[in-house]
Amino acid sequence: MVVGLGPGPAEWMTPEASAAIKAATDVVGYGPYMERLALRPDQCAHSSDNRVEMARARLALSLAAEGRAVAVVSGGDPGVFAMAAAVFEVAEEDPQWLMLDIAVAPGVTAMQAAAARLGAPLGHDFCAISLSDNLKPWTMVERRLRAAAEGDFVIALYNPASKARPTRIRQAFDLLRTAKTTTTPVAFARAVGRADETLIVTTLGDADASHADMATLVIVGSSETRVILREGARPWMLTPRAYGIGR
Amino acid sequence: MVVGLGPGPAEWMTPEASAAIKAATDVVGYGPYMERLALRPDQCAHSSDNRVEMARARLALSLAAEGRAVAVVSGGDPGVFAMAAAVFEVAEEDPQWLMLDIAVAPGVTAMQAAAARLGAPLGHDFCAISLSDNLKPWTMVERRLRAAAEGDFVIALYNPASKARPTRIRQAFDLLRTAKTTTTPVAFARAVGRADETLIVTTLGDADASHADMATLVIVGSSETRVILREGARPWMLTPRAYGIGR
Repeated sequence: MVVGLGPGPAEWMTPEASAAIKAATDVVGYGPYMERLALRPDQCAHSSDNRVEMARARLALSLAAEGRAVAVVSGGDPGVFAMAAAVFEVAEEDPQWLMLDIAVAPGVTAMQAAAARLGAPLGHDFCAISLSDNLKPWTMVERRLRAAAEGDFVIALYNPASKARPTRIRQAFDLLRTAKTTTTPVAFARAVGRADETLIVTTLGDADASHADMATLVIVGSSETRVILREGARPWMLTPRAYGIGR
Repeated sequence: MVVGLGPGPAEWMTPEASAAIKAATDVVGYGPYMERLALRPDQCAHSSDNRVEMARARLALSLAAEGRAVAVVSGGDPGVFAMAAAVFEVAEEDPQWLMLDIAVAPGVTAMQAAAARLGAPLGHDFCAISLSDNLKPWTMVERRLRAAAEGDFVIALYNPASKARPTRIRQAFDLLRTAKTTTTPVAFARAVGRADETLIVTTLGDADASHADMATLVIVGSSETRVILREGARPWMLTPRAYGIGR
């Protein structure tokens, strides 16, 4: 089973995910995710580095093919820029793996946790784009950003920056500024649900790309998204349910 | 607190959501969602009809302003085509409501549950579009469908049909057929997690719009999405993590 742990806190991990980890003989995952779990001495922990998703998926499937009860853990939702795709891709490599009973336990993904903290920024049609160009050409990212602006979607940006490529989000903002008004609300939601959670609500014109790191989820509003200011309290970011029909 | 119950089964409801419902003095929600909850005799249940979201939000905020501990329950994730936007919109109507401490408990939304059952169809950039035209002009739906095709996003379609408007999904397929190849994988995921769960995996060319009703989530693949056939077992629907970079 490919198991979504959610964004971090236990209160956001589903009972299905908790039960799957308890029932596993072997738990496979990226080191920091493994540390969140309190595995028993009789369970085998297989921790690995980041960016070795395919190797991790192969290990999981070979263990499962031996009859082990394997949980592949993933942050957020395994189906959203996480381990599920890697596992099903790798399953095609071996006829025995192809016949395994692979289940996915969905989870709360970073975009949803960020939205919950901000108010209701995803209240209408939206899209999710990973700015990582490890696995796709940057021209494809640009094409999708342009299409997202053309469709006036709310845009959730995953992997806005990394140590190797800190400038991705800056390039994305530059492109979006040519297609959307500078007053468009933008939020940086960092480490949501963790002790160092940080929320910044600003505009596309003022958005400072240096606020984004690997732990940040960026939300860029649609033309209808607005910020509700409150005296002495955090602002809310809202995309109304109705589009262009009264306010 | 606006609380996401997930798609149905208790194993997909977060501990945060369960705790919020237990802690509430008043629970406000659409009738069928309320029936899922085992409320105590000391809790006030405020059930209402569908399509009265604004009235439900006003009731919740007026109870909260009286000092009650209110949970507004929502299917799936309240931030995704559900109650969160309605609550924050209505909060602007009254200065007292604007100062309330409104939290959102995120949840697994239909798109994620469907994806989990199908394999990894959302394994890459995707968008979510509601086909309901109650709250936006149909021309906006068409603009977004065209943009989603132009950006080659995987497309999750919420509210594909209703009793009042059974033809929305047919119109959407007709539009998408002009912009995408007929071999594009399409899935109908109905009532996922419930006893009458049904999954259909087909192609855009063959997709029969009559499979979609109010309880159905439709996923239309990108140009990279593929179906992995398995002898004697359900096929998997996969959008690989890499785009246009080897196979």
